[in-house]
Amino acid sequence: MPIRTADDYLASLRNRKLKVYLFGELVTEPVDHPVIRPSINAVAETYRLAEEDPQLAGAQSSLSGERVNRFLHVTESVNDVVMQNRMQRRLGQRTGTCFQRCVGMDAINSLYSVTFDIDQAHGTAYHGRFKEFVKHMQRENFVIGGAMTDAKGDRSKAPHEQVDPDMFVRVVERRDDGVVIRGAKAHQTGCINSHWLLVMPTMRLVAEDKDYAISVAVPVDHPGITYIYGRANSVSRALEGGVIDQGNAQFGGQEALIVFDDVFVPRSHIFMNGETEFAAPLVERFTAYHRRSYVCKTGLGDVIIGAAATIADYNGASKASHVRDKLVEMAHLNETIYGAGIAASHESQPTSAGNYQCDDMLANVCKHNVTRFPYELARLAQDLAGGLMVTLPSDKEFDSPVTGPILRKYLKGNPKVSVDNRRRVLRLIENMTLGRNAVGYLTESMHGAGSPQAQRIQIQRLMKLDEKKALAKKLAGVDESENEP
Amino acid sequence: MPIRTADDYLASLRNRKLKVYLFGELVTEPVDHPVIRPSINAVAETYRLAEEDPQLAGAQSSLSGERVNRFLHVTESVNDVVMQNRMQRRLGQRTGTCFQRCVGMDAINSLYSVTFDIDQAHGTAYHGRFKEFVKHMQRENFVIGGAMTDAKGDRSKAPHEQVDPDMFVRVVERRDDGVVIRGAKAHQTGCINSHWLLVMPTMRLVAEDKDYAISVAVPVDHPGITYIYGRANSVSRALEGGVIDQGNAQFGGQEALIVFDDVFVPRSHIFMNGETEFAAPLVERFTAYHRRSYVCKTGLGDVIIGAAATIADYNGASKASHVRDKLVEMAHLNETIYGAGIAASHESQPTSAGNYQCDDMLANVCKHNVTRFPYELARLAQDLAGGLMVTLPSDKEFDSPVTGPILRKYLKGNPKVSVDNRRRVLRLIENMTLGRNAVGYLTESMHGAGSPQAQRIQIQRLMKLDEKKALAKKLAGVDESENEP
Amino acid sequence: MPIRTADDYLASLRNRKLKVYLFGELVTEPVDHPVIRPSINAVAETYRLAEEDPQLAGAQSSLSGERVNRFLHVTESVNDVVMQNRMQRRLGQRTGTCFQRCVGMDAINSLYSVTFDIDQAHGTAYHGRFKEFVKHMQRENFVIGGAMTDAKGDRSKAPHEQVDPDMFVRVVERRDDGVVIRGAKAHQTGCINSHWLLVMPTMRLVAEDKDYAISVAVPVDHPGITYIYGRANSVSRALEGGVIDQGNAQFGGQEALIVFDDVFVPRSHIFMNGETEFAAPLVERFTAYHRRSYVCKTGLGDVIIGAAATIADYNGASKASHVRDKLVEMAHLNETIYGAGIAASHESQPTSAGNYQCDDMLANVCKHNVTRFPYELARLAQDLAGGLMVTLPSDKEFDSPVTGPILRKYLKGNPKVSVDNRRRVLRLIENMTLGRNAVGYLTESMHGAGSPQAQRIQIQRLMKLDEKKALAKKLAGVDESENEP
Amino acid sequence: MPIRTADDYLASLRNRKLKVYLFGELVTEPVDHPVIRPSINAVAETYRLAEEDPQLAGAQSSLSGERVNRFLHVTESVNDVVMQNRMQRRLGQRTGTCFQRCVGMDAINSLYSVTFDIDQAHGTAYHGRFKEFVKHMQRENFVIGGAMTDAKGDRSKAPHEQVDPDMFVRVVERRDDGVVIRGAKAHQTGCINSHWLLVMPTMRLVAEDKDYAISVAVPVDHPGITYIYGRANSVSRALEGGVIDQGNAQFGGQEALIVFDDVFVPRSHIFMNGETEFAAPLVERFTAYHRRSYVCKTGLGDVIIGAAATIADYNGASKASHVRDKLVEMAHLNETIYGAGIAASHESQPTSAGNYQCDDMLANVCKHNVTRFPYELARLAQDLAGGLMVTLPSDKEFDSPVTGPILRKYLKGNPKVSVDNRRRVLRLIENMTLGRNAVGYLTESMHGAGSPQAQRIQIQRLMKLDEKKALAKKLAGVDESENEP
Repeated sequence: MPIRTADDYLASLRNRKLKVYLFGELVTEPVDHPVIRPSINAVAETYRLAEEDPQLAGAQSSLSGERVNRFLHVTESVNDVVMQNRMQRRLGQRTGTCFQRCVGMDAINSLYSVTFDIDQAHGTAYHGRFKEFVKHMQRENFVIGGAMTDAKGDRSKAPHEQVDPDMFVRVVERRDDGVVIRGAKAHQTGCINSHWLLVMPTMRLVAEDKDYAISVAVPVDHPGITYIYGRANSVSRALEGGVIDQGNAQFGGQEALIVFDDVFVPRSHIFMNGETEFAAPLVERFTAYHRRSYVCKTGLGDVIIGAAATIADYNGASKASHVRDKLVEMAHLNETIYGAGIAASHESQPTSAGNYQCDDMLANVCKHNVTRFPYELARLAQDLAGGLMVTLPSDKEFDSPVTGPILRKYLKGNPKVSVDNRRRVLRLIENMTLGRNAVGYLTESMHGAGSPQAQRIQIQRLMKLDEKKALAKKLAGVDESENEP
Repeated sequence: MPIRTADDYLASLRNRKLKVYLFGELVTEPVDHPVIRPSINAVAETYRLAEEDPQLAGAQSSLSGERVNRFLHVTESVNDVVMQNRMQRRLGQRTGTCFQRCVGMDAINSLYSVTFDIDQAHGTAYHGRFKEFVKHMQRENFVIGGAMTDAKGDRSKAPHEQVDPDMFVRVVERRDDGVVIRGAKAHQTGCINSHWLLVMPTMRLVAEDKDYAISVAVPVDHPGITYIYGRANSVSRALEGGVIDQGNAQFGGQEALIVFDDVFVPRSHIFMNGETEFAAPLVERFTAYHRRSYVCKTGLGDVIIGAAATIADYNGASKASHVRDKLVEMAHLNETIYGAGIAASHESQPTSAGNYQCDDMLANVCKHNVTRFPYELARLAQDLAGGLMVTLPSDKEFDSPVTGPILRKYLKGNPKVSVDNRRRVLRLIENMTLGRNAVGYLTESMHGAGSPQAQRIQIQRLMKLDEKKALAKKLAGVDESENEP
Repeated sequence: MPIRTADDYLASLRNRKLKVYLFGELVTEPVDHPVIRPSINAVAETYRLAEEDPQLAGAQSSLSGERVNRFLHVTESVNDVVMQNRMQRRLGQRTGTCFQRCVGMDAINSLYSVTFDIDQAHGTAYHGRFKEFVKHMQRENFVIGGAMTDAKGDRSKAPHEQVDPDMFVRVVERRDDGVVIRGAKAHQTGCINSHWLLVMPTMRLVAEDKDYAISVAVPVDHPGITYIYGRANSVSRALEGGVIDQGNAQFGGQEALIVFDDVFVPRSHIFMNGETEFAAPLVERFTAYHRRSYVCKTGLGDVIIGAAATIADYNGASKASHVRDKLVEMAHLNETIYGAGIAASHESQPTSAGNYQCDDMLANVCKHNVTRFPYELARLAQDLAGGLMVTLPSDKEFDSPVTGPILRKYLKGNPKVSVDNRRRVLRLIENMTLGRNAVGYLTESMHGAGSPQAQRIQIQRLMKLDEKKALAKKLAGVDESENEP
Repeated sequence: MPIRTADDYLASLRNRKLKVYLFGELVTEPVDHPVIRPSINAVAETYRLAEEDPQLAGAQSSLSGERVNRFLHVTESVNDVVMQNRMQRRLGQRTGTCFQRCVGMDAINSLYSVTFDIDQAHGTAYHGRFKEFVKHMQRENFVIGGAMTDAKGDRSKAPHEQVDPDMFVRVVERRDDGVVIRGAKAHQTGCINSHWLLVMPTMRLVAEDKDYAISVAVPVDHPGITYIYGRANSVSRALEGGVIDQGNAQFGGQEALIVFDDVFVPRSHIFMNGETEFAAPLVERFTAYHRRSYVCKTGLGDVIIGAAATIADYNGASKASHVRDKLVEMAHLNETIYGAGIAASHESQPTSAGNYQCDDMLANVCKHNVTRFPYELARLAQDLAGGLMVTLPSDKEFDSPVTGPILRKYLKGNPKVSVDNRRRVLRLIENMTLGRNAVGYLTESMHGAGSPQAQRIQIQRLMKLDEKKALAKKLAGVDESENEP
């Protein structure tokens, strides 16, 4: 039976016998692990939104002919691309963290057109297979994780040049009925919380990299896969029993290393296999979608602006002109990100396969601002929070009969506000600027979908400098005949 | 016969007997004045674009049932609003300056819906009259100048409180057949190059300001009007005879003070008359459109990026990594402006009158970035230009048989590039960062459509802080029952 | 016997029976507590530096006639003030965190001149007493903690207006032989690691605040004092047994709430008692010294620049021009902070008491840059680190026979660098930008010695705007006689 | 008779028969030329300051044994270097422009130590000659212009590799009694207003560049020299007769191209001749001094802050919190520049020749901030000025009986302030941000003493990255033995 609700989703994750390692131990049931659970809650929220607001988080698919979750929808119009951004911002607002499903959504949309193009060029049958795969996902209402970033090893060498050939995921055996893959994908967002993984190459490949030009779908619970959990900052607070210190006890992100230890993939789930020249287009289309998907961070920005405004209220400082001005600056920066992102979506164009691809330049501009502005929002939020944000004693001190009353006496600010409410908001700001969800709000904003320099390189490629020079020369009255060629 | 071509337009401006004062003298024919002409050329370029690219610069009007110039078009779809931005950027690229027609376009679109709303509220007949006026303009293919900014006098006082009641344009006499107005509008872009002026109030008004709640159309050549020309920076280079020193000899902006010395306006051209409560909506709708119209500056940005790249070539420095990086930064900032602007247009909504109004928040965000980023682009362009930009001798030195050869010997940089081409590009950068068109690219970017603080106030109003606080409180687990109300 | 070495210092802290609460429990011996110990090590490093570089970290005192630790030295020359900054930067470099002794140093230097001035005004005997106190500290080579920041309660009310009069430390009883004080000091850096506390008022006071105008010295181990430890971010990693995950396992900061529960202070240790008009000068002189003391953060900046450069090496990216450029930018910002700070010290002037007081404007400018630039350095360090910084599995995963070998295979970057060295540097950057020492490098940089707005207010007071206006008016040729007065 | 007063100085410039070309014509007497005179006034102000404040602008020279102008003083102490900065800021405040004498001051101080070092290495006699030259200058109280920047030609080639060997100043003939030089120096600040020029090489030289390793003193009125005047922006306003439009009618900068057409220099005035390896040290010492000399721009900053504050008063807006905040930001940035500059001076060290050389890193940091912050101050000043700054009609309009009264009616702002005073201040801000002195305040701030990238290269050299890496590795616990070498 397909997944319908957030509860269905939680149930679907149980008893999968995944090999997940965290703090040196095999996790028996991720769903019940206090460090992992908040990340599962964040994904569950995508199902909850789909229930509550089907217009926003669902779509009518002409592929399956049914209404499907928007994260599983192949875009059929400009509006479909725009609606992704609206949904992303909303989920950022509801979770205050990374809800982990954009990679899969962006992966299916880029593979949709790339498989079509490979078939055109090579007479292969990837596109049809891929559509079947997507329909299956839609019908079951599964979560797809997109797995792109390889371990990479020595960055000055191509995949086939590495001393250890496994530094990029590769085909180690080709059989009639499928392929066997080996390698690892790093920094994999939400992988353990997914049902299927879409494996894709991570960069432009050359002919010698043939074994690395592989794109497949693999079930998350494949026995050949090991997951090693990253330790996000401050996650151990979730192990302590207290709630307030966690800042945002309900929601968190997830990144893990996925290790493919000779995993067999049947033909039906292979969507690229050796067509090295299509690695670059796949990466480019994926990153274009995905850089614009960082509009989600404006949802987190809404939360942090709200938190900063609330703590200013609670500190009794909300009428100071500099406080109001800082909130305006935060909103301005946040909406600047949103503007470029939603513009990239609005300016989408149909691909040859018929789905819609966002504007590449504006997507890169959006993401590049995401590598800057959330840091400034975080700085301003810390400014408004005051130093207490980092000197607050722990939950246990507030629960103690000795120190609790002392703290509640001396940490009273605005007389109408409870000390516990004050520290709840302070801990939320800490959570987003230094703690667990700072990983998602800041560092992931820096490196997710490509580090800043990757955007700059893409902007350089797309900026049409020759056209711009021609504009300038015309207005300046440059006479090219005076120059030597 | 209606205006069809750029030449028709130039012809239409002749022999109008305007009272234009410049450098202390009455200008006999503005079209032939070397300081004024470049500003006329910039407007003429809007006609030229309409000829060359009718899709971009024209539209089908259901008002007149004809294809009309896009600057005279009342938007009938989201796409119409978006196309304004595309046209604006293109014209910015073609002129490298302010082409002066956006005020009129934004004025007709805001008056269109506001006259409708006044009629709904007061049973007046402004909307029908206004449509007739617009149809007339469309048929004749006229240039409309929008006149909003009053002299303002003592800024701590409302219009009716001023010592001199003329500091805001007002009705001094009400007759059966019309009204007589008096006052002045300052910083009026392109007014002398227009055929008609749309006069509008400049700010929120209170009941006592009734005589100031006046919106009318007036022909530019009304004998009761005097124009006093602003002296833009460096305009006198146009009087010297040389070309290269001007930087951009062909195109320039225009701002003048318009003085209404008891000008009679017949009923048919009155579109608001005493409905003070509609002054604020008119100003807000106009500024929303107009703040997003500053996307035009990304066209100028394209020129300055191109100029900076060209001078790097000419200096022989274009391969240096810091040069490439600065160009990328310029493009990134320029596209960030564009993103917010075009997003504001894409997110347009229909008004009750049926035309389309852009998103207010994103329009303000666009303009607010325009008050910052062009200054940084100008700084980076000066960086790439090198000091020669400000130490170049004058045209006459290069024409001199004594100094010309010396200069052409010693100012040779890249050996393949003529010294004159090098200085053409340097003078263009000077023109846009310090000279005549720096007024349009920088200072007008700062103050046009409202100074930075005006955007911040509007962002504050629109930022939905209470919603944001609620998001944060929910995630933080704030328990409102613990607080006192 | 006086403290001579770092070991002596550690020994001096043992067996003091302090009432320190952390994680809800009374700490039996802070010196042995894994969370507290790194903060003690940081203070111990000040003794170690004094041994290794006595020129830098010691001074000849004409007060005691002996060579003393520079942190206990009353400045006798401009060079003494400058040398403080050099020592601070060096200790920042050696510890990568807050070494906690500047507050005490700045407190003795400001109280030195303020007690002198009070005596001049009131005929009191504070200055002599204070000198005796300092001599005692010098001879024993003690650590002094300066306790200034009160709990503050409702920020819209003066101390005497608070509902709970204890929100600022106050005299609750005056006896012939001394006073009894009550209240709390918040965010107290290094207090538990000190031997004596110098209590000072936190803000400008009015006549009705007489009981709050109190400055005294109290031994840290006074039985009436309770310390409640703040939970800095990520400190619980110190409880896990692993080393690398801590990032900087050896050194950390410390902030606690100090609660004075009716502590008796004898006359000999009272340095202000009711002279409300001297609260403001004391705060101003202290903050001037202390804002410039934030030069210490350039020492941390040196560490983070070094870490960023190292990780670029380890990632194999150090030759990329954008990497070099980011390192240069980091150095530029770091030295900009240093420039203003050391300039403030160089521009010191003698007080009426004879010691030297730094320049107030430049000290504020230094600190104001400290509220901005470390955040940008942190952002750039995260850029260079790459995403692995936040997705690294925990120490225990690397120690596990199952996952350890997998991780060491796949997380190999530069082939010459061990995976453990790579993660050591990544964890150090995490430590300084998100983890335990981010509190000291970022949030404390924001709020320590006054939040940003406090510096802006002080800059506004000091900026001599009338003189600047006069300069402009003279050059502009303003004729004041044309204006009305 | 030596020059004593500003009037003496003016007299000393007359009748020198210089070959100065401006606007295509030979200038008969520069002192009387309306475009040139303001630049002469700025230099004259250095004499006036020396009269009014001899402590600040004079010094006791142990070279000549007399009190000399500080611009001619070889520094004998750290304080001497610091006092240069104080004098520079003061003169910036008095003139609002470049007063042109720092190049000469910095040139004599760097040649002082470099001639000493050449003599040590080569047994030459430059140092003694140079001291005689300086004594002569001191006794006559002359203005020295320093001439460093060559035309440079093709920037990818060394001097000896250029197609035209004259692209760098060089020795074309060596005689027993001296040398003959040819070439040009570009962007030469204040050269025409000087009495002597100190010619120096512009960059690091290789052995083959021997003829370019030449440093000499030449009298400004040598008949073999031609000066071609640069056209600074807006200078032609000085030709119109009006005063207010000039903004700062009294003071301006000056840059010209100096052409040496086979100029003979006697032995006694040769201070380097072929010692190519000393070109780099000379340039480095000169630029270290000179980059810190840009502290002068904080004097201009004081003027522009004052002007911005005044116009806010005149606009009736000075109480708005955002206005106050912008003024504080301007002051903060201005003092940040000052801090690094004065710190560089305070941290001076004696050279082997005995004079004092400033700190190289801080000097570069100072200048690098000068390439950024004045642009931001200018932007903020334009923000506070309002749009009227660029739409003001010309002086002649205000003098006209027709338009003058209209303008004085409608441009009235704050009712207590005359319209003429308002426009005086607006024109001053225009002058400094777009007009004549924007060249000195902005573009010269960018490129003078080396463009931004030159400072970045020098910061990179000086930043001791290996030491910083070692600090980080130690704290991170990096074990080098785990790495391969």
